[in-house]
Amino acid sequence: MHIDITFTRTPIVIPPQTLPSREIGAVVEFHGIVRETEGAKAIAGLDYEAYEPMAVRQLEGHLWELNALHPCSAVTLIHRLGRVAVGEASLYVRVASKHRGPALALCGALIDRMKDDVPIWKR
Amino acid sequence: MHIDITFTRTPIVIPPQTLPSREIGAVVEFHGIVRETEGAKAIAGLDYEAYEPMAVRQLEGHLWELNALHPCSAVTLIHRLGRVAVGEASLYVRVASKHRGPALALCGALIDRMKDDVPIWKR
Repeated sequence: MHIDITFTRTPIVIPPQTLPSREIGAVVEFHGIVRETEGAKAIAGLDYEAYEPMAVRQLEGHLWELNALHPCSAVTLIHRLGRVAVGEASLYVRVASKHRGPALALCGALIDRMKDDVPIWKR
Repeated sequence: MHIDITFTRTPIVIPPQTLPSREIGAVVEFHGIVRETEGAKAIAGLDYEAYEPMAVRQLEGHLWELNALHPCSAVTLIHRLGRVAVGEASLYVRVASKHRGPALALCGALIDRMKDDVPIWKR
């Protein structure tokens, strides 16, 4: 599985989609967007910080574990840091796989794990 | 839930992403791509046909049922008809929701149902 993880302090620019092989049947993209309501109050945006080296290492570890359960060919993950305004994406994930089942499952499980124990914080 | 279903005989052009509200926290996009191997043999492409009025009606029915289980705000679905070459998308689905769980679940369940009983055929 090809893995590409990036942190950026500027708005996420989605890289062109290049299929890793002619056996890719499913590409899933996920955009995590800052909502206007956080808890009960309206916000203008969120601030994200990460301990980048550890976050990359942990995301890669999760991805290799998840790949054993949900075989995929390529994962691109981009996470914003710093201030992200309402309506902007803080997270972009793209997963390419032979079949849709593993692509959707890996995408969802990766984000669950990321929110659980990867050192990325929002304020 | 806003629903937009299109069939096209030309390559899928993904419409610009406009968020239906400031409470959208998750956008999922799915690209179903024609693979080189169908069964055991290599192919150059697939031909898709649909009984369009019934396909739209059934997709809308499935979407309203699924929306009760997985609340979402907007679904865009584009399906190619005619010849689709290997490496090209035959299906594009975009789902916007407040949360990632319903967006991913509705996207997957919609495609499962579409393959099951919606009058779209590949040859």
